[in-house]
Amino acid sequence: MQKKVTIYDLSKILNVSPATVSRGLNDHPSISAKTKKRIALAAKKHGYITNKFAVNLTKQKSNTIGVIVPRLNSYFMSTVLAGMEQVINKVGYNLIISQSLESEEKEKINAKTLLNSGVDALLVSLSYETSNYDHFIDYTSRNIPLLFFDRVLNLPECYTVLIDNKAAGYEATEHLIHQGCTNILHISGHLKRNVYSERFEGYKNALQANNISFQEANFLETDLNPKKIDRVMKHIKNSTNKIDGIFVSSDNFAASCIKELTKEGYRIPEDIKVIGFNNDFVSEIVSPNLSTIDYPGFKMGMLAGESIIAHLNGNINLESINAITLRHKLIKRESTSK
Amino acid sequence: MQKKVTIYDLSKILNVSPATVSRGLNDHPSISAKTKKRIALAAKKHGYITNKFAVNLTKQKSNTIGVIVPRLNSYFMSTVLAGMEQVINKVGYNLIISQSLESEEKEKINAKTLLNSGVDALLVSLSYETSNYDHFIDYTSRNIPLLFFDRVLNLPECYTVLIDNKAAGYEATEHLIHQGCTNILHISGHLKRNVYSERFEGYKNALQANNISFQEANFLETDLNPKKIDRVMKHIKNSTNKIDGIFVSSDNFAASCIKELTKEGYRIPEDIKVIGFNNDFVSEIVSPNLSTIDYPGFKMGMLAGESIIAHLNGNINLESINAITLRHKLIKRESTSK
Repeated sequence: MQKKVTIYDLSKILNVSPATVSRGLNDHPSISAKTKKRIALAAKKHGYITNKFAVNLTKQKSNTIGVIVPRLNSYFMSTVLAGMEQVINKVGYNLIISQSLESEEKEKINAKTLLNSGVDALLVSLSYETSNYDHFIDYTSRNIPLLFFDRVLNLPECYTVLIDNKAAGYEATEHLIHQGCTNILHISGHLKRNVYSERFEGYKNALQANNISFQEANFLETDLNPKKIDRVMKHIKNSTNKIDGIFVSSDNFAASCIKELTKEGYRIPEDIKVIGFNNDFVSEIVSPNLSTIDYPGFKMGMLAGESIIAHLNGNINLESINAITLRHKLIKRESTSK
Repeated sequence: MQKKVTIYDLSKILNVSPATVSRGLNDHPSISAKTKKRIALAAKKHGYITNKFAVNLTKQKSNTIGVIVPRLNSYFMSTVLAGMEQVINKVGYNLIISQSLESEEKEKINAKTLLNSGVDALLVSLSYETSNYDHFIDYTSRNIPLLFFDRVLNLPECYTVLIDNKAAGYEATEHLIHQGCTNILHISGHLKRNVYSERFEGYKNALQANNISFQEANFLETDLNPKKIDRVMKHIKNSTNKIDGIFVSSDNFAASCIKELTKEGYRIPEDIKVIGFNNDFVSEIVSPNLSTIDYPGFKMGMLAGESIIAHLNGNINLESINAITLRHKLIKRESTSK
């Protein structure tokens, strides 16, 4: 395989210094028009890439916005990204995306890769693991705007876009209580991340407000992977008090629960009522249809995109804003009917 | 908002030429150790980004691989990307991803953005629209390896990873025929893309091999968007010959069909048997469970990743290989049982 052509190669070909080539390519006033033309022709002939560096040197803008997400395998995340694309493409920006795969180490590498790619701004939803945030200092110290969405970081210099997960968790749980449930299991993701810990808070608050005492045994911290449904099924079957309601922090996992519970002879919603979270495509496909919390992914993406563009254009200054909270909505379907 | 610090800023601060700063940052032998240290300290102090350019100048490697996909909203695509990540992360590469949103124009911009980001290789699954391929010449002319997967381009210099969609379409259709269907509707994506046109070919071949003549009325070209299910329902209800089998080129759309047909009073599989494509998560959630073709997304991603890494390391030369075809598998479930 041939190597990419470098400034040093062009310098040898043209018999001028690498600095002259670099300046010529960057339209530096110290280089004559004739030499600039020679350099440009040689660069074209030999396939030299006019890279970010050249662009950044002159314009300091790449028109590219970087995004780091935990994983690209959810309906929610794809709708968030669709919302971002819609907004930023319209104003001539392009999105490049990387996934942390829930690993802090990989999130660090992603942040570095995107920084080196010359992104004008970074949008991040944090990995499960992340507990050290130094990899974002490279951005803040360089005044590259940084925005967290969904899974956020509560630091003074960080701007966030999210929903009120505590209120949403409260509403989901209270809905089950209103439908007659008294022994409600909550299946959560990792509590380290705000979205899950706050839904859990909401769940506990709703129990308390309705004079139901919280039972440790009615809380399961999981990675919400439908392949690991067995542990949950065992837990439900072995529960000393009959579980009559389940609030699951993910629609995919809730759909798997309905499927498995039905296989085991439980009737949904008669024996156990189930409510999910996100309003994913699958919530309307599973039988019975899944009650859930509508999580406005597309709007979240749009808002994150709009905010960052407004900041880049100098129209608003994100530094003065702490958080924007989006409206969620309880969606009642068959899986929780009386 | 403050601007990013440039080489020119450092040059003014240090009172040396921009070329000296650039050389110093790139550890050029013509610059003294003392000056290099001064430059490095100033760069650090003022938050100068050691960017791709610096890395590329010396190493000509970014350890980053670019991917362009049509959309990030499918289970299939997320498993392909997971397979790629698994392989390339292990050997110290990182993936940056962009979506064309099925637009040729955006695919062009993505290709340019990733080229400017300094990717070492590009992996592409084409948009619905793409009919001009000039935007990939920038890669081939610079010897940056280019690999197409799933939705591919049949050009001599292009290496592709895909499944035998024609054989898979044949098997899906033949399965319906074996289960007793005689009037089979095929719901396809856009025929411009190989994956859909080949499945359609397979469908027609299976009919012919079983002495069933192909009816134009039994073919629907759609964008496989579950939100546009109404047109399909109308088509089925108004069909002069009773449809008794449906082969859908997507599991999500097939699941929506089952849902809607059931609502309209059709019994699945008794009245109409349905088979999908992809073996997505939803195929096991929908009732009845959906028969489908297992499309090995994870393996496709791994293979694409392995091929490109082997090529970059000089272990295999992609230029001598035309295509790698992966094994698919017919999955029989309730939606096509007798």
